[in-house]
Amino acid sequence: MKSFKLKLVLLLTICFVAFTELNAQEQVLTKYVDPFIGATGEGHTFSGASLPYGMVKIGPDCGKLNANSGYDGDGEIKGVSHVHVSGTGGPPKYGNVLVAATSGPVDIINYGSHRTNESAAPGYYAYRSKEHNIESEYTVTHSVGFHKYTFAKNQKLNLMFDLGSFLAGGDNKKSGEYSQELVGSEVRVISDTEIEGYTRIRWGWNVGDAYTVYFYAVTDKPAQQTGTWKSGKLDKNKKSQFDSHEPVGAYLTFGSNSSGEVKMKVGISFLSIGKAKQNIKNELPAWDFEKVKKDASDIWNEKLNKVVVKTKNEDQKKIFYSAVYRTMLMPVNRTGENPKWKSDAPYYDDFYCIWDTFRATHPLLTLIQQDEQVEMINSLIDIYKQEGYAPDARSGNSTGRTQGGSNSDVLIADAFVKGLKGINYEEALNSMIKNAEVPPGGDERLMGRGGINDYNNLGYVSTDYERAGSRTMEYAYNDYCIAIVAKGLGKDALYEKYINRSKNWENIWNKDIESDGAKGFIWPKRKDGTWSNKWNVHKSEGWSGWLYEGNSWEYSLYVPHDVASVVAKAGGKDAFVSRLDTFFTKNTQSFHPWLNDYYNVNNEPGFLTPTLYTYAGKSYKTNETVRNIIIKNYTSKPDGLPGNDDAGSMSAWYIFNTIGFFPVAGQDVYIITAPMFNEVSLNLGNGKTFKIVANKLSAKNLYIKSIKLNGKFLDRAWFRHEEIENGGVMEIEMTNKPISWDKVLPPSLSTNK
Amino acid sequence: MKSFKLKLVLLLTICFVAFTELNAQEQVLTKYVDPFIGATGEGHTFSGASLPYGMVKIGPDCGKLNANSGYDGDGEIKGVSHVHVSGTGGPPKYGNVLVAATSGPVDIINYGSHRTNESAAPGYYAYRSKEHNIESEYTVTHSVGFHKYTFAKNQKLNLMFDLGSFLAGGDNKKSGEYSQELVGSEVRVISDTEIEGYTRIRWGWNVGDAYTVYFYAVTDKPAQQTGTWKSGKLDKNKKSQFDSHEPVGAYLTFGSNSSGEVKMKVGISFLSIGKAKQNIKNELPAWDFEKVKKDASDIWNEKLNKVVVKTKNEDQKKIFYSAVYRTMLMPVNRTGENPKWKSDAPYYDDFYCIWDTFRATHPLLTLIQQDEQVEMINSLIDIYKQEGYAPDARSGNSTGRTQGGSNSDVLIADAFVKGLKGINYEEALNSMIKNAEVPPGGDERLMGRGGINDYNNLGYVSTDYERAGSRTMEYAYNDYCIAIVAKGLGKDALYEKYINRSKNWENIWNKDIESDGAKGFIWPKRKDGTWSNKWNVHKSEGWSGWLYEGNSWEYSLYVPHDVASVVAKAGGKDAFVSRLDTFFTKNTQSFHPWLNDYYNVNNEPGFLTPTLYTYAGKSYKTNETVRNIIIKNYTSKPDGLPGNDDAGSMSAWYIFNTIGFFPVAGQDVYIITAPMFNEVSLNLGNGKTFKIVANKLSAKNLYIKSIKLNGKFLDRAWFRHEEIENGGVMEIEMTNKPISWDKVLPPSLSTNK
Repeated sequence: MKSFKLKLVLLLTICFVAFTELNAQEQVLTKYVDPFIGATGEGHTFSGASLPYGMVKIGPDCGKLNANSGYDGDGEIKGVSHVHVSGTGGPPKYGNVLVAATSGPVDIINYGSHRTNESAAPGYYAYRSKEHNIESEYTVTHSVGFHKYTFAKNQKLNLMFDLGSFLAGGDNKKSGEYSQELVGSEVRVISDTEIEGYTRIRWGWNVGDAYTVYFYAVTDKPAQQTGTWKSGKLDKNKKSQFDSHEPVGAYLTFGSNSSGEVKMKVGISFLSIGKAKQNIKNELPAWDFEKVKKDASDIWNEKLNKVVVKTKNEDQKKIFYSAVYRTMLMPVNRTGENPKWKSDAPYYDDFYCIWDTFRATHPLLTLIQQDEQVEMINSLIDIYKQEGYAPDARSGNSTGRTQGGSNSDVLIADAFVKGLKGINYEEALNSMIKNAEVPPGGDERLMGRGGINDYNNLGYVSTDYERAGSRTMEYAYNDYCIAIVAKGLGKDALYEKYINRSKNWENIWNKDIESDGAKGFIWPKRKDGTWSNKWNVHKSEGWSGWLYEGNSWEYSLYVPHDVASVVAKAGGKDAFVSRLDTFFTKNTQSFHPWLNDYYNVNNEPGFLTPTLYTYAGKSYKTNETVRNIIIKNYTSKPDGLPGNDDAGSMSAWYIFNTIGFFPVAGQDVYIITAPMFNEVSLNLGNGKTFKIVANKLSAKNLYIKSIKLNGKFLDRAWFRHEEIENGGVMEIEMTNKPISWDKVLPPSLSTNK
Repeated sequence: MKSFKLKLVLLLTICFVAFTELNAQEQVLTKYVDPFIGATGEGHTFSGASLPYGMVKIGPDCGKLNANSGYDGDGEIKGVSHVHVSGTGGPPKYGNVLVAATSGPVDIINYGSHRTNESAAPGYYAYRSKEHNIESEYTVTHSVGFHKYTFAKNQKLNLMFDLGSFLAGGDNKKSGEYSQELVGSEVRVISDTEIEGYTRIRWGWNVGDAYTVYFYAVTDKPAQQTGTWKSGKLDKNKKSQFDSHEPVGAYLTFGSNSSGEVKMKVGISFLSIGKAKQNIKNELPAWDFEKVKKDASDIWNEKLNKVVVKTKNEDQKKIFYSAVYRTMLMPVNRTGENPKWKSDAPYYDDFYCIWDTFRATHPLLTLIQQDEQVEMINSLIDIYKQEGYAPDARSGNSTGRTQGGSNSDVLIADAFVKGLKGINYEEALNSMIKNAEVPPGGDERLMGRGGINDYNNLGYVSTDYERAGSRTMEYAYNDYCIAIVAKGLGKDALYEKYINRSKNWENIWNKDIESDGAKGFIWPKRKDGTWSNKWNVHKSEGWSGWLYEGNSWEYSLYVPHDVASVVAKAGGKDAFVSRLDTFFTKNTQSFHPWLNDYYNVNNEPGFLTPTLYTYAGKSYKTNETVRNIIIKNYTSKPDGLPGNDDAGSMSAWYIFNTIGFFPVAGQDVYIITAPMFNEVSLNLGNGKTFKIVANKLSAKNLYIKSIKLNGKFLDRAWFRHEEIENGGVMEIEMTNKPISWDKVLPPSLSTNK
């Protein structure tokens, strides 16, 4: 017995030491995260407090309440609300359960204030209000916003809950832009420390169904006065306001006997008030603000340590870790909070949208957040099982709107070829086939593939449909993804069907079109098979054009499964390289470059294009192109992102390209782009690490001279997932000379079947 | 001044006298209503308490909780729940917020009991429980269930709220049959007199989204004990159970000091608990059970007085007024209770479904409940504006499932040709065109017109789609309805387009098919234009066949806009009459006759067929056929309805045919079928009355000899809406001889353009 005890003590000691060592290995990386990067300008990033994939995102709603993240840099702060997204465009979504802190008399309209100072860190946001002389601090757990208000002892504090407030703007129903609108709201003051209620909103970017955000709020001190309002009418004696499709609110007023500090927990739920209350009980039973703040920071720090980079450039570290941080804000884990059905599957919302995130964000998760990636895919499959389609985008518990292809197909293929466990690939394949075969109907932007009847009957989407060009290009790649999964599951007939359909992009390739020395472009084709004569290769359109957010220069290059075929059609390697040179140099970087330019750094259709040089044997051009784009477009300033961050997509593009390689999403292939860090360690989980070392790296030494992967020299500027999935080392010698050292081209359908 | 006052007094006196007289004119008709007619057997009617179109329908949920209305005749009553439908088929819907009254120890599983006696009247339901010795009585306002429990003074009363209970059954997902399932539930005991919470359910017959039924309950006496449960685990100390996607419940226990009687109000809302509470405040502030019961009865009595029939046959009156009562149970007026959007339009739910009710129920409303009919159509148009399609069916705030055509089109055309005011017919026409042009997509049964691409491209729905035959027939009539509205709005090009499409039924008419001496039947056609060779005219199928709930004998006759053309195709009048004779005599009245027989009394596709004799100049055969069907199939017994009442459809068919005429829905035409009452007064509103007098009516005198409409002899067995819309008298001389007295046939497209 004694011996057993001794063993146990030894074991515990070893565990403790191991645990301490593991923690000791973790660096403090949160200090490099600046949540304000991308928060102004076109980035639209969220600057408030959230956990990774956190349901509650507490942050300021500013000015005219029309910013996508709620935030602007210097306008009035109306208050903080509890649900947000990050980096999105179009009519904003969320901004629910707004709380404003004021002093003086209760004013249910003008409760906003200006900030005299403001700070943010992972899991924390704070500002001081100029007009009201109140210090407001916020931290979070997964589903609870934790508020702390400090005010002068001779002063009053009003906590105003405005359930009629939400983010809105961009309404243009004719072009399909629907601003959020109120469906209803309700509030009850339960006691002098408790308020509960909800706000019910519909529409916004995805034109979604009504969603309801319930809350339960409790303070650490009793209020001296309470009241409510409805439709602009204050009632100081009424304790509740029922839902009559009108905006309601309530307030708690604390006097000087509240010792100048009031804390409040606001539990949020998409199910009910009871669940919101329970979320507080589960996640935040005590009142220690500093501890919760530190816990949030620690959770983020662990996540940030998944990628450790070495460089002496502290500013670069700031850009990098802020980017890593932003890739983990969305989608949102709402497991246990689905008001539409009961399921054992995980439930994620705010895929917003996969058209953005399938290219870089999800492949990044597959490397460093595999469990979450599996959960997200399983939640997509569950949505397919319950509602009929795996979404390309979803927010507020509603699927919509599809941008181009059915890109959940790419996520599934990417997981399949990289061997992710815990996914029912048979069901997943069914969801892909549904996309490919059954028209979404009434609303072609809602789900599945708009115009699929044309695509399946004619081999391309005709000009009868909007986005016919970009849809055709994306559907072809989506079909390739189906083929690959079908083949892997032993379904050869399905493979043949879809691999043939993956060549459909050729049907809109017009070999006679010339532009700036390049010949052959994708081009609008009518239902009768004739080419449109009203078009030009520079034409780039938003929602309703032939190409979605891109031009023919750009989309003609989007054939990720068969770049070799594009190279051939473009006139061979030299012509192709020359075409890429034109593509990347004719870039005026206007405010909305995707409306004017050839290459769009700030939009997703061009994510892969810098790597295409490598497909023509000129990987050094990939190196310099990537380096140029990064230096020109990414900074540590609030406007330091090119275009909307799109749920972390711009950030993920940056991360891959600075650590030295970029994924061809849907394939087990990474193109080496050259690192911008001396050393990178990717924690692949289960104790596996993939290390990238860049020797002699400098501003001038931006080219690759040679690469050793796991001790062996590479004769190719790409590698497969299986070569790194168990960890390893990639050692790269850098040089200042552009050298064509790579011999073997990356795989393409037409050359490497 | 004095003179003015005198005038006012005189005016008031006149008004008072007029009012008293009006009330004096009202007969007590509620005594003829037996809510148990149709409640067992195939009728599936609701036997509990509801107001006309009432949101709360409080009634017993019995046995295995798999009856569509909740009711069975003699099994165990689990308890009463607050939301029901009436007369439906397929997997049941609703059965929400169940309350069971028990004595003895709290048992959260076996709380049901058997009834020793049971009674029901409009707005009232009661039974005595055998095991628990409790008298349970229920009455209602629009949104509140009023409970009254009487028990022995030495006894306990437990009021058990089971939020995990709902109606379920018929699950067969492969064939599209989805049983209701729980999404979540929540409950809170607020005080010793208050309980609140909700139950969230999805699916059921229309495979609808999750809907939430909130409640707030208050008793007139304090409970001595309270407790809650979750997932079968009782907790006597816990006051609340939050939503974790599990079934929850709560109870109040009253002891002997509760004086042997406890009353309880249960407010219901589809928005929130606060709204449920407010509904009690608005509708039911006091505690006078007898007054509320009388109010409910008075409201019904006023409605029943819209049709006053004279006959010495009291049993016939009972059948008749019970039928009138059943036509006013659905749809349900949920204005102010829409959780999906805010709108100034009325909101009705439980159109369940218009495929059933467009034929007789809505035309009846247009005569005697015009305000409600306008509101219902406006609610359909608002649903189109908000969600994209006017539903053919809707329940639990979700559109679905379409049976055949897009029959909201017929409602709109019917309202238009009958001159109903207060409808925006331009918007209405847009909703019709949406149905006709835009495929519903992913789920062809959900809304709009399934298979519409085929119909619009080929002129018929091909055998690629289920229900291709019945869809083609119905779409043709729907197109006719569009044409008529378009013409009336001066849109001639639209008229031409759709009037041509209304002839599409001819494309599936196979002139070579013979059966029992009849030649020419509608027949399955493949996409390539060839006829199917695997079919027979007797084949009748349910959900997935070529014809929906009918056979080719039946559907070949469904061309309401051009019966003359069917007569011609069938070989002329004599052949057509002979064909109808065969059709009506080959009727074996099996349990599910629509699976075997030629004519289906109990299903809607045959609603018009008895009147078709009149289109061939043999109106006396219409008289005798209708009379035979009624006598054979309608009784005052609990199984006294042929087939599901389908939200009052069988009842409306009965009402029209016994008062003497039947509407050709969508047209301003009524076919005279011969009355079964000596006198009928229809209150058309605004003081207008249409009276039908049948002189010399008897069991043998079932034929019409002559008709005077507003003093003039008719030479036709039909009339137009405009001839009666301002009231009038139709005097009919009855005879025992079949006479061909009618000369002018009813209008048909091919003969009376």
